[in-house]
Amino acid sequence: MQTLIWKTLSPAQQADVLTRPALGDEASIGNLVKEIIGAVRARGDEALRELAQRFERAPREQLRVSEAETDAACARLGDDIKDAINAAISNINAFHAAQVQQIVRVETQPGVVCELRTQPISRVGLYVPGGSAPLPSTVMMLAIPARLAGCREVVLCTPSPASDEILFAARACGVKQVFAIGGAQAIAAMAYGTESIPKVDKIFGPGNAYVTEAKGQVSRDWRGAAIDMPAGPSEVLVIADDSANPAFVASDLLSQAEHGPDSQVVLVTTSPRLADAISGELKAQLARLSRRDIAAKALGASLVILCDDLDEACAISNTYAPEHLIVQTEAPRDLLGKLENAGSIFLGQWTPESVGDYASGTNHTLPTYGYARTCSSLGLADYQRRYTVQELSAEGIKGLGPIVERIAEAEGLDAHKNAVTLRLKALQKGQS
Amino acid sequence: MQTLIWKTLSPAQQADVLTRPALGDEASIGNLVKEIIGAVRARGDEALRELAQRFERAPREQLRVSEAETDAACARLGDDIKDAINAAISNINAFHAAQVQQIVRVETQPGVVCELRTQPISRVGLYVPGGSAPLPSTVMMLAIPARLAGCREVVLCTPSPASDEILFAARACGVKQVFAIGGAQAIAAMAYGTESIPKVDKIFGPGNAYVTEAKGQVSRDWRGAAIDMPAGPSEVLVIADDSANPAFVASDLLSQAEHGPDSQVVLVTTSPRLADAISGELKAQLARLSRRDIAAKALGASLVILCDDLDEACAISNTYAPEHLIVQTEAPRDLLGKLENAGSIFLGQWTPESVGDYASGTNHTLPTYGYARTCSSLGLADYQRRYTVQELSAEGIKGLGPIVERIAEAEGLDAHKNAVTLRLKALQKGQS
Repeated sequence: MQTLIWKTLSPAQQADVLTRPALGDEASIGNLVKEIIGAVRARGDEALRELAQRFERAPREQLRVSEAETDAACARLGDDIKDAINAAISNINAFHAAQVQQIVRVETQPGVVCELRTQPISRVGLYVPGGSAPLPSTVMMLAIPARLAGCREVVLCTPSPASDEILFAARACGVKQVFAIGGAQAIAAMAYGTESIPKVDKIFGPGNAYVTEAKGQVSRDWRGAAIDMPAGPSEVLVIADDSANPAFVASDLLSQAEHGPDSQVVLVTTSPRLADAISGELKAQLARLSRRDIAAKALGASLVILCDDLDEACAISNTYAPEHLIVQTEAPRDLLGKLENAGSIFLGQWTPESVGDYASGTNHTLPTYGYARTCSSLGLADYQRRYTVQELSAEGIKGLGPIVERIAEAEGLDAHKNAVTLRLKALQKGQS
Repeated sequence: MQTLIWKTLSPAQQADVLTRPALGDEASIGNLVKEIIGAVRARGDEALRELAQRFERAPREQLRVSEAETDAACARLGDDIKDAINAAISNINAFHAAQVQQIVRVETQPGVVCELRTQPISRVGLYVPGGSAPLPSTVMMLAIPARLAGCREVVLCTPSPASDEILFAARACGVKQVFAIGGAQAIAAMAYGTESIPKVDKIFGPGNAYVTEAKGQVSRDWRGAAIDMPAGPSEVLVIADDSANPAFVASDLLSQAEHGPDSQVVLVTTSPRLADAISGELKAQLARLSRRDIAAKALGASLVILCDDLDEACAISNTYAPEHLIVQTEAPRDLLGKLENAGSIFLGQWTPESVGDYASGTNHTLPTYGYARTCSSLGLADYQRRYTVQELSAEGIKGLGPIVERIAEAEGLDAHKNAVTLRLKALQKGQS
């Protein structure tokens, strides 16, 4: 890890240090994805099967995973992991259920009632990556809020073969339609629909560069689908003072580093002693990890920033805008009022990132790559939309009408004014 | 207006009728906007002044509107319009203030506390179009939630000359930084910053094809800025039964039609008699409008759909997903449970669209072009972001740790598991 002393850097250098590396913007990925989407739109399931042959590990003829297959997967799975998944579901469910919003109703002036209401997004698509490990946690994080929101149709796509853990979690979260298809072709199928895969309104979930590019392309087409949020490599920033346990901090940095070689890992500390101790711990812990090559690569590009006090540490974090922010200080909750622009904040020594990744109740789908300045962490609200309702009584239009007429006049919009004038005249005449 | 009898159409014809016309996707606009953004990023204020000379009606050297200019604008303005704007502000403020969200705090299991919190987006940019009429209402709709959310920096750009109404409304809504610059160059300036215009994190507001394209381009660049929502032509759908007042309905259809020749206007009714009566009213009212040429053009492309009952009418509206939905039926509130995918709903004969456009309290920034299936109407939430916080006690990690270990193991992520295992061991040994 490269160590920097914050106050010795110029403002330009400081800005530079906290700028994320540019992502590869490979035109070849864009073109291939465009071709894949075009094929799926033109030829539906036939194209999906061809693309699966070309790109997937275990292509299959029958795209939909049957109830019998899920029965078999659930029967194969041990009780230990089933119990753990069910316990995680219970926590995630409790936290997301508490996010239900009540109707906001305000009578802004006599007879003028305004309401803010929510409705579920009708049809949602969930993408669960396959790859090196099965990710039942992604199923839970994406499917639980969909069920709580009341989305009418929930479609899940995951590369073939779908692992037993994924099929168990999907059933436990109430997902009825699972398709064993992955990659850009799965995103295209959910955005536009095929003979077997229903079209959805919004697509959620992480994925590789092809999946991310496909989500971008379908979201820019109004005939396609909305998406959850823009994506980038996963990242953590840890703020630690001299009171922190170096072994704990090292283990948290490594949790992030093992995600992938492009993971961003940043330690901001007021304690040079702690930084040294963490460095030793990292070496010792790294050697015991199965994914040590990946983690070592991520650590190679990571940063230790030494700063003067915790106010400065908070400012650095706010500028960087991390996906995960871990606070290991003597009084972590005291910093909460100074912290902005983080996806999820983990307070104190007993709160490693991995509890939020899996089971505490919070969602692990979080904005990366600096998008935490404007994007929210995924929650129930992302599966709903807000809309307004207004209703005026005769008294309401009598009071509000003249105000509307004057502004419409100022804006030169006669018909807007006339819609009010006609009604006021009708009321004067005692008509309805 | 073209009249269709719904049940005589095939499902394919029905889908076709409710599909919006394709928007011109002119590469020339994209290229020019790209060039403008590049110039502003490279040469800042100098480029802004050059571009203003090239594209704007009243280019000026001093981009920022001074306090003295605003003083003068406010002094020129009549009390009537000032009072009307202030009354509208009061209603809009009341409705948006009621949208403040409380912290959600759940102890999901003993010692595991999860919180959902909100923070203001730090820096926001508001774009207020100039064009044929000054739009003080746009200032109110964009600036009031920014102030209520507590955004630290609020920047407003509007083409030069900024009208007195716009300057008055900006001051009344607490906007301190107003710049008299419009078009794609204004969007570029707010997205990237120049010497005089601060960079913002998110840009709000409507605009012409160049502004819309610029918002799209800067939102796809992670160095740029997020945007409020995708844009399309304004639109209304009216559901009316035989009890509706044809003059009122006609005035509402014309309010929408006068916005622009590409405005979408749809009437869905169970009553052929009403449709006939409205047709007569449209002719009579149209003749008296100053913007009759624009309105006539929009009406020419508009639709009357005759259907069998109000359930069918609701289904048609849900499929179309209108920006504005006006319900003029005998018991309009009874339909609320059946209506989805509308930006804002106007209930009953005393609730014309223009009350929501200006002064009832709801926001007039609404999803168009079918985006109401997934996008919300603008509100306080769009000026904030949600993030989560979690804090575990020693008891919390003791209870949750084994669950996390098991799922991490299933996902093959050793370091995630180890971050928990280390802590559980430390607790066993009585260490902290």
